[in-house]
This record gives sequence, structure tokens and C-alpha cells, in this order.
Amino acid sequence: MLTNIGSDRVRSVRALSRRAVREREALFLAEGPQAVGEVVVHRSDAVQDLYVDAQSGTRHTAVLHAARAAGVTTHEVSSEVLAAMCDTKAPQGIVAVCRPIDVDLDAVLDVRPRLVMILTNVRDPGNAGTVIRGADAAGADAVLFSDSSVDIYNPKVVRSTAGSLFHLPIVIGVPIPVLLDRVRGAGMALLAADGTGQSELADIDLTGPHAWVMGNEAWGLEPGVREACDAVVRVPIYGKAESLNLAMAATVCLYTSAGVQRTAPTSR
Amino acid sequence: MLTNIGSDRVRSVRALSRRAVREREALFLAEGPQAVGEVVVHRSDAVQDLYVDAQSGTRHTAVLHAARAAGVTTHEVSSEVLAAMCDTKAPQGIVAVCRPIDVDLDAVLDVRPRLVMILTNVRDPGNAGTVIRGADAAGADAVLFSDSSVDIYNPKVVRSTAGSLFHLPIVIGVPIPVLLDRVRGAGMALLAADGTGQSELADIDLTGPHAWVMGNEAWGLEPGVREACDAVVRVPIYGKAESLNLAMAATVCLYTSAGVQRTAPTSR
Repeated sequence: MLTNIGSDRVRSVRALSRRAVREREALFLAEGPQAVGEVVVHRSDAVQDLYVDAQSGTRHTAVLHAARAAGVTTHEVSSEVLAAMCDTKAPQGIVAVCRPIDVDLDAVLDVRPRLVMILTNVRDPGNAGTVIRGADAAGADAVLFSDSSVDIYNPKVVRSTAGSLFHLPIVIGVPIPVLLDRVRGAGMALLAADGTGQSELADIDLTGPHAWVMGNEAWGLEPGVREACDAVVRVPIYGKAESLNLAMAATVCLYTSAGVQRTAPTSR
Repeated sequence: MLTNIGSDRVRSVRALSRRAVREREALFLAEGPQAVGEVVVHRSDAVQDLYVDAQSGTRHTAVLHAARAAGVTTHEVSSEVLAAMCDTKAPQGIVAVCRPIDVDLDAVLDVRPRLVMILTNVRDPGNAGTVIRGADAAGADAVLFSDSSVDIYNPKVVRSTAGSLFHLPIVIGVPIPVLLDRVRGAGMALLAADGTGQSELADIDLTGPHAWVMGNEAWGLEPGVREACDAVVRVPIYGKAESLNLAMAATVCLYTSAGVQRTAPTSR
């Protein structure tokens, strides 16, 4: 059992809370039983090491069993060591050190997606994670992040995806113009979601393959991005609210698309 | 200008960050230009005092002008005093001390609402506030909280409503059985939202007056509440996500209702 909170191993795991270290080491943390459980079940190939607090090991029997069955290396540690490794205040006794799970844009486009979410300039970790969770729930084929977005391996993003980070393909780091060109080239319509859009959500034909494009939580879409899209669409505000927050607007758009695509006769 | 951060006034404003004090004094805080702007425009009757940081006063000219036009008492304070008054780390130079804005259930039901949100046992301030914001955006007639819910005057709730707290009627503190009986008695169908529901959202008739009923973010609806409702409805999960979070599920339900009610011929 690892008990020395000053060891190199503990410090190197803890350092993964910092973006620069994550990028240099090409590793990130999945903290808590939900995230660890989902990475073990869906992406065990990405798990480098799994650490479990000896006292809470019995609470995580199912996760540990699945991990060992998948050939993941597990280590018992003291609760002090686990706390020292984690970014979270309450890590709930389990953490996995993982290799990046993002995929190439080609891998997404090659399988002819019908519904994807493109996030440009999204900076808040909670928003980004919640959008990934909403996209997963709505059955979207992928989430694509521009190069000017929050790091998806930030522990706050990982946590707020509630495991969805390991459920659907995620693309990161592509410049916005390239992202838009490539997605359009794959036969998808580009729909900018914006509170000031000329078209209302209910009036847009969502039966064909399309990508929702969303901008920064405070200042929205860059003008050039709005212009590059096929339509600028607003979620209607029926009351006095100024807007929906980014994650809510994204979820409403994705669920509206999913509802239409799953009832409409498909052209494939 | 108030400059003494140790004064009784500063301490009594600051104390409103605590629930017991809010309840004893029947006052709460609206912090930052968005919340203060919305309470001044929509509920100036509820504002007891408004404090503005002398340095940032010029940034809030529109809010201050509206406040003075509405007869609200405004006080200039030093930025140290403003920071000492607030719960927020970055209060952005302006805070209002407000009287409660909740209304009686009768006042909501007397005007024959067509769409309301009922929250039972919701505990997380961010979730509660985001649901209020979503209900406002979707044009719901009211949000009703059971007596076992988070305090809506918690600064985190106020903040996450993004001003919507002052836009639509909010009812608090009603025991769940009373809430359900009275809402049904007003001719509304009770629809429990639950990931394990037998009915899917798309299959429910949403044209008539109805209330969505949501439970605790971790353990969902109490069995008795599920049984008391006319239907238990699930938002479909098309991907691998275990669930949507409470605020996302609430927003999807409310927007689906609003879309149906606003296009269907009304029976009123």
C-alpha cells in the first residue's frame, strides 16, 4: 500500500491538475467512482493506473472487478495519499490516471455522422462538461472543440461530464475555419445557435445531417463563424429571461434535433 | 459615503448570507449588476436599500438611474465595504438588500396557469436557480418549491437565476401533498419527470394545463409523489449517459411543453 504523500508518484499524479503538466505528460485524471467506472467500462485502453483508497475499496468492488478484468493496473493507497493525488475536495476514494481519449476529426467524419456539436471559444469547464453530457444523452455522434476552447482534461470538465467523456467521440484543438470547412465537406449543414438568430428552432429543417455551432458563454459566436454557417438559429425565449445558459441552450437544440431525426424517415 | 467595514450596517448586510438571518430579518441579497438591474426594473417594490461602490458607480449608471426613478434608496460605499457586504468573491460593485418576492400559491392558481414547475426536495442552489432561469425562458407561469427544498434566497440560487428570480411568480414552503392537491384542484395534470418513467416525453399530451414535478438531484422523486402524479415521464436517453442533470431535464421538459402549448389550438 502506498502511504507516503511526499513520494514522486503522488506528486506526479497531483501535478496533473495543471494543464501544462497534462499536456507534457499526455495524461489526465478521472476522479471518483462515476468517472472511473465509466472509463474502465468504456475505455479501459485509456487507463494507465488506478488508485483506490484502502478504506473505501469495499465500496468500489464492482469498479475494481471490472478494472482487473480489463487488465488495468490497480494500486491500494492510504486515504491521505488519495486526497493528495486529487484535485477534488471529496475524491470518494478512487482515481484513475488516463491517457487522452480524443480522436481525429477524420475518424468522426468517416462514419458519416448525422448530429454533432461544435463548441468554439467555450471557456467554462462546467459548461463544456455539461454540454458533453447533454450531447451523449441526446445521442449525438460527436462533440468537436475548436483550438480556443477549455481543456477537456481539466478535472472540472471531466467531473461535469458525469462519465460521458468516455461515451462518445471527442475532437479537440482544430482551428475554427478548418473545423467548419471539414464538417460542411462531410455533407453536414452548419447551424449556429445564437439568441439573436433570424430563424427560430421550430422553423428549421433538422431531418438531414447537421452540426450545431455554439460560441463563448459571455460574448457568443464570432461574426465570421455566424457568417460561415448555413443558418443562425435562436432557441425562443417565451418569458422575460435574457437568455438560456450555454449548456441548457445546447441541450434544447440537441434534443430537438434528436427528436426530429429519430422520428423522420432517414435518407440513409 | 460609507467606508467603515466594521459598522453595524455592513455586518447586518453581510449576515444575510446566512439562512437563519435571512429568515429572521425577512431580507436577502441580490448581488451584481444583472440581479440588481432585474430587481430594480421588475420588482422595485422589493428593494429596501441599494449599495454601490463609488469607483464602479459609473459602470452602473443605467441601473442607478432606474433605481432612483423607482424611488429606491441608494448608498455610495467604498469598494472595501461592498466586498465586506457580499457573499460573492467578485460582487462587481453593486448589491441590493431585498424583501422576499415569493407569492402565495393562491395567487398563482387564481390566474389559471397552463404550465408550472414543481420542485420537491431539490437541494443544490445552482440547480434550483438554473431551473428558475429555464422556467422563465420557457415562459412557464410559476415555479413552486416544496417545504423541503433549498432556500431560494441563498445567494448562489439568486445568482444562478441570472435575474429570472424577479421575472415570474415563485412559491415556497408548501408541504408536497398540499402542493400536489392544490395544483391538481386547479385543473392541472401532474407529470412526474423521472429517468425511469413508463411514458416517454414525446408520447404525452402536453396541450392542456400541466405541472412538471421533479425530485431530488441524487435520489429523484419520493415514491409517494410518483404515485400521486397522473403520469411518470422520462426524457429519452439516446446515448450512453446515465441521465441528464436536473436543470437540463427540467429545461427539456418545459421547452417541449411550451412548444406544444404555443402551437396547439388553446382550449381557453
